[in-house]
Amino acid sequence: MRATVMYEAGDVRVESVPDARLIEPSDALVRVTRAGICGSDLWPYKSMPKGDVGRRMGHEFIVVVEDVGSDVQTVKKGDLVLSPFLWSDGTCVYCREGLQSECLHGGRYGWGDVDGGQGEAVRVPKADGTLVVLPVAVDEALLPSLLTLTDVMGTGHHAAVTAHVKSGETVAIVGDGAVGLCGVIASKRLGASRILLLGSNPDRVALGEAFGATDVVRERGDEAVERVRELTDGQGAHSVLECVGLEQAMVTALEIVRPGGAVGRVGIPEHETTPTSIAFWKNANVGGGPAPVRAYIDDLLADVLEGRIEPGRVFDRTGTLEEVPDGYRAMNDREVLKFQIKP
Amino acid sequence: MRATVMYEAGDVRVESVPDARLIEPSDALVRVTRAGICGSDLWPYKSMPKGDVGRRMGHEFIVVVEDVGSDVQTVKKGDLVLSPFLWSDGTCVYCREGLQSECLHGGRYGWGDVDGGQGEAVRVPKADGTLVVLPVAVDEALLPSLLTLTDVMGTGHHAAVTAHVKSGETVAIVGDGAVGLCGVIASKRLGASRILLLGSNPDRVALGEAFGATDVVRERGDEAVERVRELTDGQGAHSVLECVGLEQAMVTALEIVRPGGAVGRVGIPEHETTPTSIAFWKNANVGGGPAPVRAYIDDLLADVLEGRIEPGRVFDRTGTLEEVPDGYRAMNDREVLKFQIKP
Repeated sequence: MRATVMYEAGDVRVESVPDARLIEPSDALVRVTRAGICGSDLWPYKSMPKGDVGRRMGHEFIVVVEDVGSDVQTVKKGDLVLSPFLWSDGTCVYCREGLQSECLHGGRYGWGDVDGGQGEAVRVPKADGTLVVLPVAVDEALLPSLLTLTDVMGTGHHAAVTAHVKSGETVAIVGDGAVGLCGVIASKRLGASRILLLGSNPDRVALGEAFGATDVVRERGDEAVERVRELTDGQGAHSVLECVGLEQAMVTALEIVRPGGAVGRVGIPEHETTPTSIAFWKNANVGGGPAPVRAYIDDLLADVLEGRIEPGRVFDRTGTLEEVPDGYRAMNDREVLKFQIKP
Repeated sequence: MRATVMYEAGDVRVESVPDARLIEPSDALVRVTRAGICGSDLWPYKSMPKGDVGRRMGHEFIVVVEDVGSDVQTVKKGDLVLSPFLWSDGTCVYCREGLQSECLHGGRYGWGDVDGGQGEAVRVPKADGTLVVLPVAVDEALLPSLLTLTDVMGTGHHAAVTAHVKSGETVAIVGDGAVGLCGVIASKRLGASRILLLGSNPDRVALGEAFGATDVVRERGDEAVERVRELTDGQGAHSVLECVGLEQAMVTALEIVRPGGAVGRVGIPEHETTPTSIAFWKNANVGGGPAPVRAYIDDLLADVLEGRIEPGRVFDRTGTLEEVPDGYRAMNDREVLKFQIKP
C-alpha cells in the first residue's frame, strides 16, 4: 500500500510500504477515508535529523473498518469510525477517568509496528478502546469537521477546558493556527462573552472572527500584552489558550491572564523552561498538555452532526495522498492553514 | 513604641519608632497580642542588601482594637481581631471573588507608612475589608492556632486547594517547614486518604505524622521521586503541595505528581524558571501563589475554635518582642521551626 514516510527535515515521501494487517486479536484493520496533516507534523519536518530508517507519518484520520481481530466487540466491518490521535485501551485507570492520552497501555501512530494515518490503510491497536463509531454514513460535507475531532478540534477544546473557560467571561487565544481557531470555536461553545484572538495572518483572523472572535489583537510581544490590557480594563483575560508552543507565546499568555485566571496550553512546547514568577504572583493556574480527544469526541460530536460548529473550515486545501509532500511544504510555508488528504 | 526593623541581611533590630496612629478614616489602630516570624521573613534576613533606611517587619498578628477611623463599621475598640498577612479593601472585584491577595487597593504590612506586625501596635488600613473579629475573648491556649490563620495555616490550605486535594486521594507534600506541616493538616482536613510528607528533620516529620502524614519520604531529589513512585504504584500523587520555593523542590513536585494531577505551589519562588515539559506531557496542572487567607479564615476558624485542628503546634518557641532578633537567628539556623512573639 502507499503511505507517507519522513526521512529527515524537509524530506517527506509517499511510497510503497507493506500492507497494513491485523496482528493482535484486539486490532482493527481500517481503510482511510480522510486524513489530515497536523501542525505537530511540521516539527519533524523542520528538525528531524537524518536516520537509518524513515518514520511513518499521520495521526488524524477517519476510516472505514475492513476487518477486526477476534477480541474486538464494538466495531465491525463497514463501520465509519474516528480514531483519536493516540490509541488507548479504554479500560485502564486513566482511560476510565477520561484522560485517555495517558493510557497505561496506549501509544502513538507511526511508531514501532503501528502504521501512520497518512496512508491507504492502518492497523489500529486496542480497537475497542480507541475507535468511535460514527452514527452516520460517509457524508462529504460533514467529513472535514468530523476529521477535526481526531485532534485539532479536540485540542482546541482541551485548551479551553484547561483554561477554565466559563460562560460570560473573557478569553484570549494566543495563536491563529488551526488549533487556535478551534480554540475560538470551543470558547464560544462554552459561553465566553468576549474572545480576543492574538494573530496577524489576515485570512486566519478572518476565519477566527467567523468562528466567534470578538476582537483581534494583531500586535506581538509587549505590545500585544498592552493591547489586551487596554481591552480588559487593565486586568487581563480570565482564560488564556496558548496554542503555539514557543516561549514568547507562553510568556505572552502568562502576562495577559488575569489574576486568579487560568492558562490552558496545548502548543507542544519547544522551549525548555518557563518563567516561574509571572503566574505565581498573580495566582494564575497553568494546565494543559496532550488532549484526551477520545473523551471529548462524545461532547463535540453532536454539535458537528447538527451543524452548530464547523471546525472543518480550518482545512483550506484538499489533495490526494500523492500530494501530501506538497501539503507539508505548503503548510510549512504558511501558504496553507491545514491540509486534508482524500486518498 | 518598639518595633522590629531590618537593615540588611542578618541585621534585624528591635528599636523605638514613632507610635502607630490613625491616618485614614478607614484605618484601625490595634495593639499586638501575638505575632509570628514567617518563613518569608527569612528571605530578607538572608539576602537584603544594605540600604539607607530600615524596613519594618512582620505580617502575622492577632490584635486588640484600640481605636478606629470615622468610616470603620465592622470592628470597634476592644475587639480581638485577626489580620491576614495582606490588607485589602473587601469591596474590589478580586475581594468579592475571594482572591483578596490580589486586591486592587490593598497592600503589604511594613511598606510605605504602614507598620509591620512585629511591634507593639499597628495602623491597619482598610480595616473593614481586612480585619476579622474573633468570636472569643483572649484565650491563651487558642492564640497560637488562631495566629496561624493570618498566614501559615491559610497558606498550607491554599497549597491544598490549588493542588485540588480530594477525599480519598493521595497527596504528597514537598517540605517539612511550618507551611508544609500546615499543608498536612489541610490535606487531612480535606479528606486525603494518604499523605506523603517529604522531609528529613526528625522533629518536623514527627509533628507532620502527628498532624496526619501517613508516610515520610526522607530521601531527596531523584531518590525521593523514586520512593514516591514506589509508594504510589508507579503513578505519583494526585495532588502535590510545593511548600519550599526552590527549583529542586519544584522539579520534585512536578516529577511526583500523577498524570492529570495538580501541583499547588506556595513556596515563594527563588528560582527564575521552571522546566516546561514535565507538567505538559502528563497534563499536570500547576496553581498557587500568595494565599488569599482572608477568604480562608471563615473556612478554618471553626475547626480551630472547636479544636479539630491545632496548627499552633508549629510554634516551638515563644519570646518577647526584644527577643525577636534571636528568633530570626534561631529560625534561620533551623534550631526553631517557628517563633511566636508575645509582646
